[in-house]
Amino acid sequence: MKLNHHFEEISESYLFAEVSRRVQSYRKSHPDHEVISLGIGDVTRPLCTAATQALVKASQEQGTQEGFHGYGPEQGYPFLREAVQSYYGTMGVQVEAEDIFISDGAKSDLGNFLDLFDRENTVLIPDPVYPVYRDTNQMAGRPIRYLNAVRENGFLPMPEEGMEGDIIYLCSPNNPAGVVYTREQLQKWVDFALEHEAIIFFDAAYEGFIRDSSLPRSIFTIPGAEKCAVEFCSFSKLAGFTGLRCGYTVVPHTLVREGMSLRKMWLRRQTTKFNGVPYPVQRAAAAVLTPEGLAQCRESIEVYRQNAALISQTLKECGVWHTGGAHSPYIWLECPGKMDSWEFFDTLLEKADVVGTPGSGFGKNGEGYFRLTGFGTPENTQKAMERFRKVFG
Amino acid sequence: MKLNHHFEEISESYLFAEVSRRVQSYRKSHPDHEVISLGIGDVTRPLCTAATQALVKASQEQGTQEGFHGYGPEQGYPFLREAVQSYYGTMGVQVEAEDIFISDGAKSDLGNFLDLFDRENTVLIPDPVYPVYRDTNQMAGRPIRYLNAVRENGFLPMPEEGMEGDIIYLCSPNNPAGVVYTREQLQKWVDFALEHEAIIFFDAAYEGFIRDSSLPRSIFTIPGAEKCAVEFCSFSKLAGFTGLRCGYTVVPHTLVREGMSLRKMWLRRQTTKFNGVPYPVQRAAAAVLTPEGLAQCRESIEVYRQNAALISQTLKECGVWHTGGAHSPYIWLECPGKMDSWEFFDTLLEKADVVGTPGSGFGKNGEGYFRLTGFGTPENTQKAMERFRKVFG
Repeated sequence: MKLNHHFEEISESYLFAEVSRRVQSYRKSHPDHEVISLGIGDVTRPLCTAATQALVKASQEQGTQEGFHGYGPEQGYPFLREAVQSYYGTMGVQVEAEDIFISDGAKSDLGNFLDLFDRENTVLIPDPVYPVYRDTNQMAGRPIRYLNAVRENGFLPMPEEGMEGDIIYLCSPNNPAGVVYTREQLQKWVDFALEHEAIIFFDAAYEGFIRDSSLPRSIFTIPGAEKCAVEFCSFSKLAGFTGLRCGYTVVPHTLVREGMSLRKMWLRRQTTKFNGVPYPVQRAAAAVLTPEGLAQCRESIEVYRQNAALISQTLKECGVWHTGGAHSPYIWLECPGKMDSWEFFDTLLEKADVVGTPGSGFGKNGEGYFRLTGFGTPENTQKAMERFRKVFG
Repeated sequence: MKLNHHFEEISESYLFAEVSRRVQSYRKSHPDHEVISLGIGDVTRPLCTAATQALVKASQEQGTQEGFHGYGPEQGYPFLREAVQSYYGTMGVQVEAEDIFISDGAKSDLGNFLDLFDRENTVLIPDPVYPVYRDTNQMAGRPIRYLNAVRENGFLPMPEEGMEGDIIYLCSPNNPAGVVYTREQLQKWVDFALEHEAIIFFDAAYEGFIRDSSLPRSIFTIPGAEKCAVEFCSFSKLAGFTGLRCGYTVVPHTLVREGMSLRKMWLRRQTTKFNGVPYPVQRAAAAVLTPEGLAQCRESIEVYRQNAALISQTLKECGVWHTGGAHSPYIWLECPGKMDSWEFFDTLLEKADVVGTPGSGFGKNGEGYFRLTGFGTPENTQKAMERFRKVFG
């Protein structure tokens, strides 16, 4: 018996679990304090009407002989794959419905997609970044090289002379820094990947927050990406599906390495190790992609954006350096008073009863930084910012 | 760039995909024939009332500010873990709620649990068996030794002198053969695993079909199993959740190898590569485990059992050797006329318009055998058996 000892190399507790642990302990010792969380990237607004109606209807169907749906296709029902295909069409992107795989969320697929690769590949991961990229590769014992995301490059690392790698993670709009790659920047990454026969894992989970139409919402808006990129996307942030679990991964049929089709491999992986997304959830997701559903979702996103704008404004008034928030729910700030990230976490919690996410949890370059989100309610965000001003203004 | 070339070693198409391909092609060329499927193990009866009501109610909640649930615990909500804990209690099994992990189905977990193991372990897999055990290990490049499941051992292989292995797959009630291990037989496997420090992956997906209370529905009814077994279970067959996706995996806190707690490793795996089961689905699953829900589910199971009994009776009348069906939805039969499995598949389809599953798809010892299921409707099962009698009687 030999276990996978790479599990010992990854840090003991997952970032958000540690945040949750500290908050619970604080709540216990301060039962009378009203703690406001602008920490974990969870939405607070309910599901939109179109999605709720579709979800309820499909749930009712499951209780009837005529409407009951058992096993569906592992890669998702055609009605949803085609809806996603049309959604891409609105961005001017042509993808085959067969290239689209419906999943239970980008987090699962980002990890599971690594099943397709040998352990010997070198992965390039920005630092700081969504911890799942790092942890899933460490679990598999794969060598990681970090791309420095720092204030100097706007937290958006670019290819550099002599850089080498097989798998490249890009997240735009970025988690945690809230910044967005331009078309020109993404084109450089695509050119690099094509030249090095590398594959880009493009995490587009926050694409719904982009309002400047000149900024790319999909890597497939960049010529050549269909030969070097896989895109992971989600209904979580676009439509508040964090508790409902649905996403999609696009693996272009034109993506081939060593004579093997990655789409074919992923289909095999999913038909063997996955059994599809619940039928009612797929119906709800399809309803999101109707004109009515999208309009309703955009209302919620607008609320989150206004929250982000308020946070941004408050930080500006307090003289705190920050970025993000314009095309993203995330604001990335420098901890005031040269505090380190967890020090500021504790200070903010103890002095303002506000929870955020320590930047160091996203990588070493995140040390000294901190993430706040616009996902709170407007009332709570306002309250939190008033408290912030009192403490740090 | 190096892909995972083990994907090339696994057979091109997944068994049920091949069945589906042949049926679609037959349907196209025989548009006027009414094809009845007793093939894939999918249920046909709708969700029970208790589960439907809970599903609909929780779906409606998702559309309200007060009732909305975002990210839940990756390992499942306490209300469902505790319900599963109580369900085990009714079998006389004590498990900690923390040992129970809610998943999107046994298929996913059976594959994903392998993340915890080094590739160097030897796995023991019965032949024939549910193909997922084999395919997921082949994908990881892990050496497999097959345990011969043949008519002589009642398709239930037992430990043998000189046998060695690190991971042992047991499926009881068995897929495909429909037979069930006794307590004494499972005790021998537990003793073997303890002696060899191996781990048993116990697939209990069909436990709901056992009606003889002396037969074990959980491996944890066997002393010592808490130190050498993981149990994978599902709401799919107990409660018709094939399209709703919910299962659970029990990893006892007492299961430790090389000083590492498997429960702790699995928690880390799931918090990193999974994001939990949809909230409404968890509510539906909890409703299944109420006395009312269980009574309703048992009504459906009784219908499937009567179908199985009818199939069994028909085969007996036609002089076809078979087993299973008593505590399982599956009947495992010898192909009449010494036909091989796919030959019989085609014959049954062409002469009777009935779809079953070729035994050879489950492993080499399945060659010459065939699986039928009681999951059809009573009307279809009756019709299919009348046709069977005409052709093979």
